Amino acid sequence: MSVTARDNAVFEAGIKLGALYHQFVGSPVSPKTAESLEKAISQSISVQPYVKHITVRLDRKMIEESLSAYGYTELKGPMLDVDAVIKYEKYEVVVGIAYKDGYPLMFIKDLREV
Amino acid sequence: MSVTARDNAVFEAGIKLGALYHQFVGSPVSPKTAESLEKAISQSISVQPYVKHITVRLDRKMIEESLSAYGYTELKGPMLDVDAVIKYEKYEVVVGIAYKDGYPLMFIKDLREV
Amino acid sequence: MSVTARDNAVFEAGIKLGALYHQFVGSPVSPKTAESLEKAISQSISVQPYVKHITVRLDRKMIEESLSAYGYTELKGPMLDVDAVIKYEKYEVVVGIAYKDGYPLMFIKDLREV
Amino acid sequence: MSVTARDNAVFEAGIKLGALYHQFVGSPVSPKTAESLEKAISQSISVQPYVKHITVRLDRKMIEESLSAYGYTELKGPMLDVDAVIKYEKYEVVVGIAYKDGYPLMFIKDLREV
Repeated sequence: MSVTARDNAVFEAGIKLGALYHQFVGSPVSPKTAESLEKAISQSISVQPYVKHITVRLDRKMIEESLSAYGYTELKGPMLDVDAVIKYEKYEVVVGIAYKDGYPLMFIKDLREV
Repeated sequence: MSVTARDNAVFEAGIKLGALYHQFVGSPVSPKTAESLEKAISQSISVQPYVKHITVRLDRKMIEESLSAYGYTELKGPMLDVDAVIKYEKYEVVVGIAYKDGYPLMFIKDLREV
Repeated sequence: MSVTARDNAVFEAGIKLGALYHQFVGSPVSPKTAESLEKAISQSISVQPYVKHITVRLDRKMIEESLSAYGYTELKGPMLDVDAVIKYEKYEVVVGIAYKDGYPLMFIKDLREV
Repeated sequence: MSVTARDNAVFEAGIKLGALYHQFVGSPVSPKTAESLEKAISQSISVQPYVKHITVRLDRKMIEESLSAYGYTELKGPMLDVDAVIKYEKYEVVVGIAYKDGYPLMFIKDLREV
């Protein structure tokens, strides 16, 4: 089958989420530094091709609950709440990462022709 | 538009390449250890859902040419030559990473219904 | 105070453990692929300067216990059991990562003049 | 030989630099997002134990020069200019990462009893 613009739009969306997760998971973080990490992650991914919009939220409650005796923790997949819009030619793909059923899941929320 | 199995197949393929790249780029490597890194990368990605097959080759010539005075270098994107087959429901997506026109590009090679 | 060879030996040992941890934590892993990841991690770190010896073991029981419904997990700090010998000039530093008191701790085990 | 507080101070300093390098190298970056990445890196490392102070600067000229046709690049070791002060008991260790002689070097700048 021929590869379509829609395929490429969805493929690019997957690349961005895989990249985000494996680049930043493991970063030391605390409640005080969560905001700067959110901002850096969203800005970092936003410079990649076809990223129209991205929002990254780190779950403050999970960060609090996993603090070590040293007062910090590491970014873990379940802490990530991500929404991103990838635009490739006339297709916009809305994708996300969210913690569901015990896992940090990546999924396609919406797909539209614009 | 409704998200189809084909969309999910392609999305999952993108996730795997983004993950591979950002997890392992930066790993110290030398000509002698390239093979164990290739094997670990391909096995690591192969445990993720929907990965039917994956081959990872690291460019020995580039590794040689970028060796530091200390006799090693770090895995860089252009050194990666990856082929992977992702299977989601009845769709198989063949994707890859290859160095073209000065960049490590990720692309869909083939898409088929099986 | 002047920086001594002993200081540099211990400094280099710390660099290697920090690098190992943050390069490889997050890698997808399963009981079947743990061995190839252990080998790749130890070989990757061993190419860096001053590494005389390194052994990396991944805790199979923890890997088993943290498997997702998809049959894999990600390498986490507590799964790491590392022993390394760093040699700088006439100093050998034996360092390690081990899971103690709920944390993956990095520590100096021994320091000797050779 | 017994492990001293001075050894532990220097060891902890090494851990922080190795962690910083291998956590964040590979992050997508552009001239516009360099500042948020600098801030996130310095805040992320600053939550770890014994970090008294840290400054992270990313070389804007190198970022500009390595921009791809897509208008971004990835954080590479040579772009890092880091100064950090690690304090362990009565020892302060000043360490850094800087690009010298073609390599991103990590080194101890100063060591003092306070």
